[in-house]
Amino acid sequence: MHFSSRLLEQAVDEFGRLPGVGKKTALRLVLHLLKQSDGEVARFTGAINQLKEQIKYCKTCFNIADVDTCEICASPKRDKEIICVVEDTRDVMAIENTNQYQGVYHVLGGLISPMDGVGPADLKIEALIDRLKTGEVKEVILALSATMEGDTTIFYLYRKLKDFDVQISTIARGIAFGGELEYVDEVTLGRSIATRIPYERSVG
Amino acid sequence: MHFSSRLLEQAVDEFGRLPGVGKKTALRLVLHLLKQSDGEVARFTGAINQLKEQIKYCKTCFNIADVDTCEICASPKRDKEIICVVEDTRDVMAIENTNQYQGVYHVLGGLISPMDGVGPADLKIEALIDRLKTGEVKEVILALSATMEGDTTIFYLYRKLKDFDVQISTIARGIAFGGELEYVDEVTLGRSIATRIPYERSVG
Repeated sequence: MHFSSRLLEQAVDEFGRLPGVGKKTALRLVLHLLKQSDGEVARFTGAINQLKEQIKYCKTCFNIADVDTCEICASPKRDKEIICVVEDTRDVMAIENTNQYQGVYHVLGGLISPMDGVGPADLKIEALIDRLKTGEVKEVILALSATMEGDTTIFYLYRKLKDFDVQISTIARGIAFGGELEYVDEVTLGRSIATRIPYERSVG
Repeated sequence: MHFSSRLLEQAVDEFGRLPGVGKKTALRLVLHLLKQSDGEVARFTGAINQLKEQIKYCKTCFNIADVDTCEICASPKRDKEIICVVEDTRDVMAIENTNQYQGVYHVLGGLISPMDGVGPADLKIEALIDRLKTGEVKEVILALSATMEGDTTIFYLYRKLKDFDVQISTIARGIAFGGELEYVDEVTLGRSIATRIPYERSVG
């Protein structure tokens, strides 16, 4: 791409660094911003700068928050005896949307991934262990992705946590609701048969 | 979506306003930025602010530029007798990439679109007419998209320009190179037969 302006090229380069944003998309987004009013562009960049400068992480669960202790950890209605361990804030949002969970969270901030240079020390694992040392916690749910990185992290956490007097569980894996058997991949289907549960339990 | 942080929500809202960026993508992009260093985020927002504050438009062709007269208009190598009229800077880039064009450009800044509230007065049409009044221009190529808006704009420009002593042409429409006949839409195929050209001309 040959740009008629160095300033334009710089802005497109910056947008193109975002995950999943190619050069053509970056150019489209930058030209869109350029058509907006000064105030709208200032609001766009201001929101990002403000987020970066002022963002806090809950000192208990490490979820993104505007204050030192997030809403969920501060709520007297949430069950502090159950901790759901997740990768990032998106997973908290997804689980909160189900309205099925009344415990609290622990946000690791990633998954163990040697390929990406992410080791256990890069995640909030020691802080999780500290939470268990209080003896208040009865159950830890490992709600991590069904990927290689997720499984590696679950395995690592299990070894770290198994000597505590807590129930360690993982979220159920199997066929999604509405999923048709013939389209399910072999691994999922095989595992969902191996980990079958009595009918009485499956209906809650 | 329930956000654990108002700052996060604001930044996601701003990203979600960009064309083609949904809420989930916006959240993914914002969380990516949040993981970058302070310097990298400052460079991202700085590039956009700088572009918006300092961008200039060539006073002759209205292409985006860092100076008052763009590289193309300033070049003694470019043929000032031919003006290629395009919608925006992306079209200039696309045509420059072909290395087939040695004339200059005129960037309209959009296409006539009553649906989007864009009328002729919103485009750089008067400035194009002023360029023709110098008598220096011999040909105007209308290189606009083969869409309803493109055709409307071509029709409007043709009426405005036809009384000047210039050749007005449009870029050829037809089957793209590598395109298989059976997959070409009816309108394109019909027109490409109606506007067929002698073989000797088709091979340049």
